[in-house]
Amino acid sequence: MTKPALVLTLASAMALSFGLRAQQAPTDGPRYTSGTNLARPTDYREWPFVGSSLGLAYTTLPEGAPPPFANVFVNPSSYRTFMQTGRWPDGTVLVLEIRRSANDGALIKGGRYQTDLLVLEAQVKDSRFPDGWAFFSWGRGSALLDVAAPAPPDTAIPGEGTCVECHTKHAAVERTFVQFYPTLLDVARQKGTLNPGF
Amino acid sequence: MTKPALVLTLASAMALSFGLRAQQAPTDGPRYTSGTNLARPTDYREWPFVGSSLGLAYTTLPEGAPPPFANVFVNPSSYRTFMQTGRWPDGTVLVLEIRRSANDGALIKGGRYQTDLLVLEAQVKDSRFPDGWAFFSWGRGSALLDVAAPAPPDTAIPGEGTCVECHTKHAAVERTFVQFYPTLLDVARQKGTLNPGF
Repeated sequence: MTKPALVLTLASAMALSFGLRAQQAPTDGPRYTSGTNLARPTDYREWPFVGSSLGLAYTTLPEGAPPPFANVFVNPSSYRTFMQTGRWPDGTVLVLEIRRSANDGALIKGGRYQTDLLVLEAQVKDSRFPDGWAFFSWGRGSALLDVAAPAPPDTAIPGEGTCVECHTKHAAVERTFVQFYPTLLDVARQKGTLNPGF
Repeated sequence: MTKPALVLTLASAMALSFGLRAQQAPTDGPRYTSGTNLARPTDYREWPFVGSSLGLAYTTLPEGAPPPFANVFVNPSSYRTFMQTGRWPDGTVLVLEIRRSANDGALIKGGRYQTDLLVLEAQVKDSRFPDGWAFFSWGRGSALLDVAAPAPPDTAIPGEGTCVECHTKHAAVERTFVQFYPTLLDVARQKGTLNPGF
Protein backbone atom coordinates (compact mmCIF):
# COMPACT_ATOMS: atom_id res chain seq x y z
CA MET A 1 0.00 0.00 0.00
CA THR A 2 1.40 3.43 -0.92
CA LYS A 3 1.45 6.44 1.32
CA PRO A 4 -1.11 8.48 -0.72
CA ALA A 5 -3.56 5.58 -0.60
CA LEU A 6 -3.35 5.47 3.16
CA VAL A 7 -3.84 9.21 3.47
CA LEU A 8 -6.90 8.91 1.26
CA THR A 9 -8.26 6.05 3.36
CA LEU A 10 -7.92 7.99 6.60
CA ALA A 11 -9.33 11.14 5.03
CA SER A 12 -12.24 9.16 3.60
CA ALA A 13 -12.95 7.55 6.94
CA MET A 14 -12.98 10.96 8.65
CA ALA A 15 -15.12 12.51 5.93
CA LEU A 16 -17.54 9.60 6.17
CA SER A 17 -17.68 9.94 9.93
CA PHE A 18 -18.32 13.70 9.86
CA GLY A 19 -20.72 13.28 6.95
CA LEU A 20 -22.79 10.73 8.83
CA ARG A 21 -22.84 12.90 11.93
CA ALA A 22 -23.96 15.91 9.91
CA GLN A 23 -26.68 13.82 8.26
CA GLN A 24 -27.87 12.23 11.51
CA ALA A 25 -28.38 15.45 13.44
CA PRO A 26 -31.59 16.62 11.73
CA THR A 27 -33.11 13.21 10.93
CA ASP A 28 -34.94 12.85 14.24
CA GLY A 29 -36.76 16.19 13.79
CA PRO A 30 -39.70 16.90 11.47
CA ARG A 31 -39.44 15.47 7.98
CA TYR A 32 -41.52 17.48 5.53
CA THR A 33 -42.70 16.78 2.02
CA SER A 34 -44.01 19.58 -0.20
CA GLY A 35 -43.04 22.38 2.18
CA THR A 36 -44.95 21.88 5.44
CA ASN A 37 -46.64 18.48 5.07
CA LEU A 38 -45.31 16.23 7.83
CA ALA A 39 -44.17 12.69 7.03
CA ARG A 40 -45.21 10.18 9.69
CA PRO A 41 -42.10 9.03 11.62
CA THR A 42 -41.94 5.23 11.54
CA ASP A 43 -39.64 4.93 14.55
CA TYR A 44 -41.44 7.13 17.10
CA ARG A 45 -42.05 4.12 19.38
CA GLU A 46 -38.29 4.15 20.04
CA TRP A 47 -38.36 7.85 20.97
CA PRO A 48 -38.42 8.89 24.63
CA PHE A 49 -41.89 8.44 26.14
CA VAL A 50 -42.97 11.37 28.31
CA GLY A 51 -46.42 10.46 29.59
CA SER A 52 -49.61 8.47 29.33
CA SER A 53 -53.14 9.37 30.37
CA LEU A 54 -56.48 7.60 30.38
CA GLY A 55 -59.66 9.35 29.27
CA LEU A 56 -58.11 12.78 28.61
CA ALA A 57 -58.42 12.66 24.83
CA TYR A 58 -60.56 15.46 23.46
CA THR A 59 -61.71 13.39 20.50
CA THR A 60 -65.43 12.71 20.78
CA LEU A 61 -66.03 9.01 21.35
CA PRO A 62 -69.09 6.95 20.51
CA GLU A 63 -71.34 6.60 23.58
CA GLY A 64 -70.29 3.66 25.75
CA ALA A 65 -66.84 3.50 24.14
CA PRO A 66 -64.05 2.73 26.64
CA PRO A 67 -61.88 5.72 27.66
CA PRO A 68 -58.76 5.85 25.44
CA PHE A 69 -55.14 6.01 26.53
CA ALA A 70 -52.96 8.81 25.12
CA ASN A 71 -49.18 8.21 24.94
CA VAL A 72 -46.77 11.03 24.08
CA PHE A 73 -43.29 10.56 22.57
CA VAL A 74 -40.67 13.24 21.74
CA ASN A 75 -37.89 13.12 19.15
CA PRO A 76 -34.65 12.21 21.00
CA SER A 77 -32.56 15.33 20.34
CA SER A 78 -35.37 17.69 21.44
CA TYR A 79 -35.99 15.55 24.53
CA ARG A 80 -32.32 15.90 25.49
CA THR A 81 -32.45 19.67 24.96
CA PHE A 82 -35.55 19.92 27.17
CA MET A 83 -33.92 17.87 29.95
CA GLN A 84 -30.99 20.33 29.90
CA THR A 85 -32.89 23.61 29.47
CA GLY A 86 -36.61 23.12 30.20
CA ARG A 87 -37.39 24.54 26.74
CA TRP A 88 -38.22 23.03 23.35
CA PRO A 89 -35.82 23.71 20.46
CA ASP A 90 -37.05 24.50 16.98
CA GLY A 91 -37.66 21.17 15.26
CA THR A 92 -39.38 19.54 18.24
CA VAL A 93 -41.91 16.82 17.34
CA LEU A 94 -44.33 15.54 19.97
CA VAL A 95 -46.22 12.47 18.75
CA LEU A 96 -49.61 11.77 20.37
CA GLU A 97 -50.74 8.18 20.09
CA ILE A 98 -54.32 7.46 21.13
CA ARG A 99 -55.02 3.80 21.92
CA ARG A 100 -58.10 1.82 22.82
CA SER A 101 -58.21 0.54 26.40
CA ALA A 102 -59.41 -2.89 27.51
CA ASN A 103 -60.02 -4.64 30.81
CA ASP A 104 -60.70 -8.22 29.78
CA GLY A 105 -58.25 -11.06 30.33
CA ALA A 106 -57.69 -13.72 32.97
CA LEU A 107 -55.24 -11.61 34.95
CA ILE A 108 -57.37 -8.48 35.10
CA LYS A 109 -59.54 -7.94 38.14
CA GLY A 110 -59.79 -4.19 37.55
CA GLY A 111 -57.99 -1.44 35.74
CA ARG A 112 -57.31 -0.97 32.04
CA TYR A 113 -54.45 -1.64 29.63
CA GLN A 114 -53.61 -0.46 26.10
CA THR A 115 -54.65 -2.17 22.86
CA ASP A 116 -55.26 -0.97 19.25
CA LEU A 117 -53.97 2.31 17.88
CA LEU A 118 -56.94 4.63 17.29
CA VAL A 119 -55.43 7.93 16.15
CA LEU A 120 -51.93 9.32 15.54
CA GLU A 121 -51.21 13.05 15.76
CA ALA A 122 -48.28 15.41 16.21
CA GLN A 123 -47.43 18.88 17.46
CA VAL A 124 -44.35 20.50 15.91
CA LYS A 125 -42.33 23.56 16.90
CA ASP A 126 -41.11 25.29 13.77
CA SER A 127 -40.59 29.04 13.41
CA ARG A 128 -42.02 28.87 9.88
CA PHE A 129 -45.55 28.43 11.32
CA PRO A 130 -47.59 31.52 12.36
CA ASP A 131 -47.63 30.75 16.12
CA GLY A 132 -44.31 28.87 15.96
CA TRP A 133 -46.20 25.62 16.40
CA ALA A 134 -48.43 23.46 14.17
CA PHE A 135 -50.69 20.46 14.70
CA PHE A 136 -51.01 17.43 12.41
CA SER A 137 -53.12 14.28 12.25
CA TRP A 138 -52.21 11.13 10.33
CA GLY A 139 -55.77 9.94 10.96
CA ARG A 140 -57.15 6.65 12.18
CA GLY A 141 -54.83 3.86 13.33
CA SER A 142 -56.47 1.38 10.97
CA ALA A 143 -55.66 3.55 7.92
CA LEU A 144 -52.80 5.90 8.79
CA LEU A 145 -51.72 8.52 6.30
CA ASP A 146 -48.04 8.66 5.38
CA VAL A 147 -48.08 12.45 5.27
CA ALA A 148 -50.30 15.03 6.99
CA ALA A 149 -50.91 18.69 6.19
CA PRO A 150 -50.87 21.13 9.12
CA ALA A 151 -54.30 21.56 10.69
CA PRO A 152 -55.80 24.88 9.52
CA PRO A 153 -55.49 27.58 12.22
CA ASP A 154 -59.28 27.62 12.73
CA THR A 155 -59.47 23.86 13.48
CA ALA A 156 -61.46 23.75 16.73
CA ILE A 157 -62.50 21.25 19.39
CA PRO A 158 -66.08 22.05 20.54
CA GLY A 159 -65.88 23.79 23.92
CA GLU A 160 -62.09 24.19 23.77
CA GLY A 161 -61.60 26.53 20.83
CA THR A 162 -58.82 26.09 18.32
CA CYS A 163 -55.69 23.97 18.86
CA VAL A 164 -53.63 27.12 19.38
CA GLU A 165 -56.16 28.75 21.76
CA CYS A 166 -56.34 25.69 24.02
CA HIS A 167 -52.57 25.10 23.89
CA THR A 168 -52.02 28.79 24.73
CA LYS A 169 -54.48 28.93 27.61
CA HIS A 170 -53.78 25.56 29.30
CA ALA A 171 -50.17 24.57 28.52
CA ALA A 172 -47.59 24.44 31.32
CA VAL A 173 -44.50 25.03 29.11
CA GLU A 174 -44.61 27.01 25.85
CA ARG A 175 -47.54 25.40 23.96
CA THR A 176 -47.19 21.92 25.48
CA PHE A 177 -49.11 20.13 28.24
CA VAL A 178 -46.01 19.41 30.34
CA GLN A 179 -48.28 19.30 33.42
CA PHE A 180 -49.11 15.72 32.29
CA TYR A 181 -45.46 14.63 31.78
CA PRO A 182 -44.06 14.22 35.30
CA THR A 183 -40.33 13.93 34.53
CA LEU A 184 -40.46 16.98 32.23
CA LEU A 185 -42.50 18.93 34.80
CA ASP A 186 -39.71 18.44 37.36
CA VAL A 187 -37.18 19.84 34.89
CA ALA A 188 -39.37 22.84 34.00
CA ARG A 189 -39.76 23.63 37.73
CA GLN A 190 -35.98 23.45 38.24
CA LYS A 191 -35.26 25.59 35.19
CA GLY A 192 -38.06 28.09 35.87
CA THR A 193 -39.63 27.66 32.44
CA LEU A 194 -43.26 27.10 33.50
CA ASN A 195 -45.87 29.42 32.01
CA PRO A 196 -47.56 31.89 34.43
CA GLY A 197 -50.19 30.11 36.52
CA PHE A 198 -48.19 26.89 36.91
CA MET B 1 4.14 12.59 8.89
CA THR B 2 5.85 9.24 8.26
CA LYS B 3 4.17 6.23 6.83
CA PRO B 4 4.37 4.16 10.05
CA ALA B 5 2.74 7.00 12.01
CA LEU B 6 -0.17 7.08 9.58
CA VAL B 7 -0.62 3.33 9.74
CA LEU B 8 -0.65 3.59 13.52
CA THR B 9 -3.21 6.40 13.40
CA LEU B 10 -5.55 4.44 11.18
CA ALA B 11 -5.07 1.28 13.21
CA SER B 12 -5.69 3.20 16.43
CA ALA B 13 -8.83 4.78 15.04
CA MET B 14 -10.15 1.38 14.02
CA ALA B 15 -9.21 -0.19 17.34
CA LEU B 16 -10.90 2.66 19.19
CA SER B 17 -14.01 2.29 17.07
CA PHE B 18 -14.24 -1.48 17.58
CA GLY B 19 -13.34 -1.09 21.26
CA LEU B 20 -16.14 1.40 21.83
CA ARG B 21 -18.59 -0.82 20.02
CA ALA B 22 -17.55 -3.85 22.09
CA GLN B 23 -17.88 -1.83 25.29
CA GLN B 24 -21.23 -0.33 24.37
CA ALA B 25 -22.98 -3.59 23.53
CA PRO B 26 -23.51 -4.89 27.08
CA THR B 27 -24.01 -1.54 28.87
CA ASP B 28 -27.75 -1.39 28.23
CA GLY B 29 -28.34 -4.80 29.86
CA PRO B 30 -28.35 -5.63 33.59
CA ARG B 31 -25.55 -4.10 35.63
CA TYR B 32 -24.86 -6.16 38.74
CA THR B 33 -22.90 -5.42 41.89
CA SER B 34 -21.84 -8.22 44.24
CA GLY B 35 -22.92 -11.03 41.90
CA THR B 36 -26.67 -10.73 41.35
CA ASN B 37 -27.66 -7.43 42.97
CA LEU B 38 -29.10 -5.19 40.27
CA ALA B 39 -27.97 -1.56 39.95
CA ARG B 40 -30.82 0.81 39.16
CA PRO B 41 -30.45 2.08 35.56
CA THR B 42 -30.49 5.87 35.61
CA ASP B 43 -31.42 6.23 31.93
CA TYR B 44 -34.39 3.85 31.66
CA ARG B 45 -36.71 6.75 30.77
CA GLU B 46 -34.86 6.92 27.42
CA TRP B 47 -35.41 3.19 26.80
CA PRO B 48 -38.23 2.05 24.51
CA PHE B 49 -41.60 2.27 26.27
CA VAL B 50 -43.80 -0.78 25.64
CA GLY B 51 -47.01 -0.10 27.53
CA SER B 52 -48.93 1.70 30.23
CA SER B 53 -51.90 0.57 32.30
CA LEU B 54 -54.11 2.14 34.93
CA GLY B 55 -55.14 0.23 38.05
CA LEU B 56 -53.47 -3.09 37.15
CA ALA B 57 -50.71 -2.92 39.77
CA TYR B 58 -50.88 -5.80 42.24
CA THR B 59 -49.41 -3.69 45.03
CA THR B 60 -51.98 -3.24 47.80
CA LEU B 61 -53.01 0.40 48.02
CA PRO B 62 -54.41 2.32 50.97
CA GLU B 63 -58.21 2.48 50.81
CA GLY B 64 -59.40 5.41 48.71
CA ALA B 65 -56.01 5.82 47.02
CA PRO B 66 -56.24 6.66 43.30
CA PRO B 67 -55.52 3.78 40.89
CA PRO B 68 -51.83 3.89 39.87
CA PHE B 69 -50.38 3.91 36.36
CA ALA B 70 -47.75 1.28 35.48
CA ASN B 71 -45.27 2.11 32.69
CA VAL B 72 -42.93 -0.54 31.28
CA PHE B 73 -39.59 0.17 29.55
CA VAL B 74 -37.14 -2.33 27.98
CA ASN B 75 -33.38 -1.98 27.44
CA PRO B 76 -32.84 -0.95 23.79
CA SER B 77 -30.83 -3.91 22.50
CA SER B 78 -33.32 -6.46 23.93
CA TYR B 79 -36.22 -4.45 22.51
CA ARG B 80 -34.64 -4.61 19.04
CA THR B 81 -34.08 -8.37 19.37
CA PHE B 82 -37.73 -8.85 20.38
CA MET B 83 -38.98 -6.80 17.42
CA GLN B 84 -36.98 -9.09 15.10
CA THR B 85 -37.63 -12.46 16.77
CA GLY B 86 -40.56 -12.22 19.21
CA ARG B 87 -38.31 -13.56 21.97
CA TRP B 88 -36.26 -12.02 24.78
CA PRO B 89 -32.49 -12.46 24.72
CA ASP B 90 -30.50 -13.23 27.86
CA GLY B 91 -29.75 -9.88 29.51
CA THR B 92 -33.24 -8.43 29.00
CA VAL B 93 -34.29 -5.85 31.60
CA LEU B 94 -37.94 -4.77 31.85
CA VAL B 95 -38.36 -1.80 34.18
CA LEU B 96 -41.79 -1.35 35.80
CA GLU B 97 -42.51 2.19 36.94
CA ILE B 98 -45.59 2.66 39.10
CA ARG B 99 -46.85 6.26 39.23
CA ARG B 100 -49.60 8.02 41.12
CA SER B 101 -52.54 9.18 38.98
CA ALA B 102 -54.34 12.50 39.31
CA ASN B 103 -57.40 14.13 37.79
CA ASP B 104 -57.23 17.68 39.07
CA GLY B 105 -56.28 20.64 36.89
CA ALA B 106 -58.13 23.24 34.88
CA LEU B 107 -58.01 21.26 31.66
CA ILE B 108 -59.27 17.98 33.13
CA LYS B 109 -62.95 17.24 32.85
CA GLY B 110 -62.45 13.50 33.33
CA GLY B 111 -59.76 10.91 32.99
CA ARG B 112 -56.43 10.58 34.78
CA TYR B 113 -52.80 11.48 34.10
CA GLN B 114 -49.47 10.47 35.65
CA THR B 115 -47.70 12.20 38.52
CA ASP B 116 -45.21 11.06 41.25
CA LEU B 117 -43.15 7.92 41.01
CA LEU B 118 -44.43 5.45 43.64
CA VAL B 119 -42.40 2.26 43.10
CA LEU B 120 -39.64 1.11 40.72
CA GLU B 121 -39.15 -2.59 39.92
CA ALA B 122 -37.51 -4.77 37.30
CA GLN B 123 -37.75 -8.21 35.76
CA VAL B 124 -34.51 -9.61 34.31
CA LYS B 125 -33.81 -12.58 32.04
CA ASP B 126 -30.52 -14.15 33.02
CA SER B 127 -29.69 -17.86 32.75
CA ARG B 128 -27.88 -17.66 36.07
CA PHE B 129 -31.22 -17.46 37.91
CA PRO B 130 -33.12 -20.71 38.77
CA ASP B 131 -36.11 -20.05 36.44
CA GLY B 132 -34.00 -17.98 34.01
CA TRP B 133 -35.73 -14.83 35.30
CA ALA B 134 -35.54 -12.77 38.49
CA PHE B 135 -37.55 -9.90 39.99
CA PHE B 136 -36.16 -6.85 41.76
CA SER B 137 -37.55 -3.82 43.59
CA TRP B 138 -35.69 -0.57 44.16
CA GLY B 139 -38.47 0.39 46.56
CA ARG B 140 -40.48 3.56 46.96
CA GLY B 141 -40.08 6.45 44.53
CA SER B 142 -39.41 8.90 47.35
CA ALA B 143 -36.41 6.86 48.58
CA LEU B 144 -35.16 4.67 45.73
CA LEU B 145 -32.39 2.18 46.41
CA ASP B 146 -29.36 2.29 44.11
CA VAL B 147 -29.07 -1.50 44.12
CA ALA B 148 -31.65 -4.25 44.69
CA ALA B 149 -31.19 -7.92 45.56
CA PRO B 150 -33.30 -10.43 43.60
CA ALA B 151 -36.65 -11.09 45.28
CA PRO B 152 -36.47 -14.44 47.10
CA PRO B 153 -38.20 -17.22 45.09
CA ASP B 154 -40.97 -17.49 47.71
CA THR B 155 -41.91 -13.78 47.49
CA ALA B 156 -45.68 -13.89 47.00
CA ILE B 157 -48.56 -11.55 46.19
CA PRO B 158 -51.64 -12.60 48.22
CA GLY B 159 -54.05 -14.40 45.89
CA GLU B 160 -51.53 -14.60 43.02
CA GLY B 161 -48.78 -16.81 44.42
CA THR B 162 -45.11 -16.13 43.87
CA CYS B 163 -43.70 -13.83 41.17
CA VAL B 164 -42.62 -16.88 39.15
CA GLU B 165 -45.97 -18.72 39.57
CA CYS B 166 -48.01 -15.72 38.35
CA HIS B 167 -45.57 -14.92 35.51
CA THR B 168 -45.66 -18.60 34.47
CA LYS B 169 -49.45 -18.96 34.57
CA HIS B 170 -50.51 -15.61 33.04
CA ALA B 171 -47.69 -14.39 30.76
CA ALA B 172 -48.24 -14.18 26.99
CA VAL B 173 -44.56 -14.53 25.95
CA GLU B 174 -42.00 -16.40 28.06
CA ARG B 175 -42.46 -14.94 31.57
CA THR B 176 -43.62 -11.48 30.43
CA PHE B 177 -47.08 -9.88 30.21
CA VAL B 178 -46.81 -9.03 26.52
CA GLN B 179 -50.63 -9.15 26.35
CA PHE B 180 -50.49 -5.60 27.78
CA TYR B 181 -47.86 -4.28 25.29
CA PRO B 182 -49.73 -3.90 21.99
CA THR B 183 -46.80 -3.37 19.61
CA LEU B 184 -44.92 -6.35 21.08
CA LEU B 185 -48.08 -8.48 20.99
CA ASP B 186 -48.35 -7.91 17.22
CA VAL B 187 -44.76 -9.09 16.78
CA ALA B 188 -45.27 -12.19 18.97
CA ARG B 189 -48.36 -13.10 16.91
CA GLN B 190 -46.40 -12.73 13.65
CA LYS B 191 -43.44 -14.73 14.95
CA GLY B 192 -45.58 -17.41 16.63
CA THR B 193 -43.94 -16.97 20.03
CA LEU B 194 -47.08 -16.66 22.19
CA ASN B 195 -47.42 -19.08 25.09
CA PRO B 196 -50.22 -21.70 24.81
CA GLY B 197 -53.62 -20.15 25.59
CA PHE B 198 -52.81 -16.83 23.89
